[in-house]
Amino acid sequence: MATKISKVDEEEGNIRERCKSFMSVPVTDIKVLEQRKDAMSTRMEMLIMETQAAFCRALEEVDGGSFKVDRWSRKEGGGGISCVMQDGKVFEKAGVNVSVVYGNLTEEAAKQMRSRGKVLKGKDGKLPFCAMGVSSVIHPKNPHIPTVHFNYRYFEIEEADGTKQWWFGGGTDLTPVYIDLEDAAHFHKTLKEACDKHHPKYYPDFKKWCDNYFYVRHRGETRGIGGIFFDDLDSPNQEEVFNFVKSCAKTVVPCYLPIVNKHLNDSFTPEEKDWQQVRRGRYVEFNLVYDRGVKFGLATPGSRIESILMSLPLTARWEYMHEPTKGTKEAEMLEVLRNPKEWI
Amino acid sequence: MATKISKVDEEEGNIRERCKSFMSVPVTDIKVLEQRKDAMSTRMEMLIMETQAAFCRALEEVDGGSFKVDRWSRKEGGGGISCVMQDGKVFEKAGVNVSVVYGNLTEEAAKQMRSRGKVLKGKDGKLPFCAMGVSSVIHPKNPHIPTVHFNYRYFEIEEADGTKQWWFGGGTDLTPVYIDLEDAAHFHKTLKEACDKHHPKYYPDFKKWCDNYFYVRHRGETRGIGGIFFDDLDSPNQEEVFNFVKSCAKTVVPCYLPIVNKHLNDSFTPEEKDWQQVRRGRYVEFNLVYDRGVKFGLATPGSRIESILMSLPLTARWEYMHEPTKGTKEAEMLEVLRNPKEWI
Repeated sequence: MATKISKVDEEEGNIRERCKSFMSVPVTDIKVLEQRKDAMSTRMEMLIMETQAAFCRALEEVDGGSFKVDRWSRKEGGGGISCVMQDGKVFEKAGVNVSVVYGNLTEEAAKQMRSRGKVLKGKDGKLPFCAMGVSSVIHPKNPHIPTVHFNYRYFEIEEADGTKQWWFGGGTDLTPVYIDLEDAAHFHKTLKEACDKHHPKYYPDFKKWCDNYFYVRHRGETRGIGGIFFDDLDSPNQEEVFNFVKSCAKTVVPCYLPIVNKHLNDSFTPEEKDWQQVRRGRYVEFNLVYDRGVKFGLATPGSRIESILMSLPLTARWEYMHEPTKGTKEAEMLEVLRNPKEWI
Repeated sequence: MATKISKVDEEEGNIRERCKSFMSVPVTDIKVLEQRKDAMSTRMEMLIMETQAAFCRALEEVDGGSFKVDRWSRKEGGGGISCVMQDGKVFEKAGVNVSVVYGNLTEEAAKQMRSRGKVLKGKDGKLPFCAMGVSSVIHPKNPHIPTVHFNYRYFEIEEADGTKQWWFGGGTDLTPVYIDLEDAAHFHKTLKEACDKHHPKYYPDFKKWCDNYFYVRHRGETRGIGGIFFDDLDSPNQEEVFNFVKSCAKTVVPCYLPIVNKHLNDSFTPEEKDWQQVRRGRYVEFNLVYDRGVKFGLATPGSRIESILMSLPLTARWEYMHEPTKGTKEAEMLEVLRNPKEWI
């Protein structure tokens, strides 16, 4: 049902009209988008812009503050729109970023971009590519409101013989400071419903992938309580995968906002705030040591560092030998991170 | 002169007697140390234990607090002594760590441990090794007192034909939040004097190596104002290199404590504290993204994570698009980090 409605929206809406609700004009010139309105790159750019706007508006409504919008361009090709709200009433740091970049990749770099490491043949070793996505990390102030992260992306690459390779990737995952079983169930159930509309194996497979991906190996714990994560998705066909990604993108508000609203007025102690800060430190460790997107970004010439690192919290803390006392809520949270479980 | 005195100390002192001043009994059993008292591994273990004790005592005296001493062992062989003072009067987080580890390395791992990437032949691909060192990072509370880091280490590896390869590495570097030309000159001058006793090229070469090593590429800035850094040092001979490392180790107190004492009672504003926190964030970025020791540690099975990550500050901050206003003290600091200079 939801898929049908959004399909109608997408097909019937006038591009110029739809752009009016965005946080900024898109990266690609509207005229170009209109000219190639049926191309997947156009449909995906419209989807990520819409996702950014919907999520930012929902967060602004609950916070009362507003996002700072930075439109930037990349001299090697393309650019992005970074929306950041810092030190708001509810959110310590909220970042929602869209990027649409293109240029040439070396064969080695192209190989690294696919998790399956497929070999791609370029013309004189160069491969024209286009990569776009929306990504977001929201760090609230109240330790009873979890951090959320999502990212949905599309990649196109052209081989020497003119063959176009493409794939989608993405996911949404939750990082609570204290575990709330009801929140965890709501979050996973919302994602499962979106997945189930497309394939019964998507939720179980991508839930497991998420737990494996967001694993902080040196700590022996996951970053949070997971969600879904997938990469390199290129079957059964482009239309089907796009529809799946669209369903996922449309869940970011219903996954997260009910949780924010539920805990908006929860009181908290200085000790709870400290535990949040320690968990933020772990978040930084994952992002700087393991995250493929961050590593790729930091190593890519011309990438916009501030947009890549806007996923880092405003504040974090590292206490030597921090270990919660047995039987506390902090120990309960850690137990969950050490032993990922099924939430629904 | 200083070299002569410390040589006498080292040669004349009774091992058991010298151990009494340490923060803990050494990692290696005292009887074993006595049995092989002329071996470089014994002399170096005594030196790193002495350096740890001297530095910890000096910091305790200025802070009034005391170090928590953790003696730990590694099931694969060896162990360490971690001394940490957290949330003291002067120091936000001060860590001084000794580790003495041994076991077998794969040929690939052994290659990675040498910055020159020398190929080493092991017996059935395995190479018995022994690695030891003292390392420290001190993060003070007052933004006018800089962060200091030092590390002195020794490495021994045995090839299949019984050949022993050995080398030393180390360095001391300073990371101020605000630049103080007098402090910078004192710090570099103290290091240069220690270097000059051994080779006129040591200071200029190792100063440059330090600036290159502590470079945060994605920010286009160095971590701090440098000092010295060297690795893979195995000439002209073991005795000479050990004496040089000893001279360096003996400078850690005279390099840093006069700077701490000078700024002990400097007043500071909340804005200055914020800038310190932003700089701490950059410190975390360097340590988690680039530092070879941290990367090696996090990837090594059985390594003690808390001792590796004790170099991270107690608190750090990431502000989106933080850029100091032109003409401020913060802008002046950044200018120095973007353009490393000669301090003496």
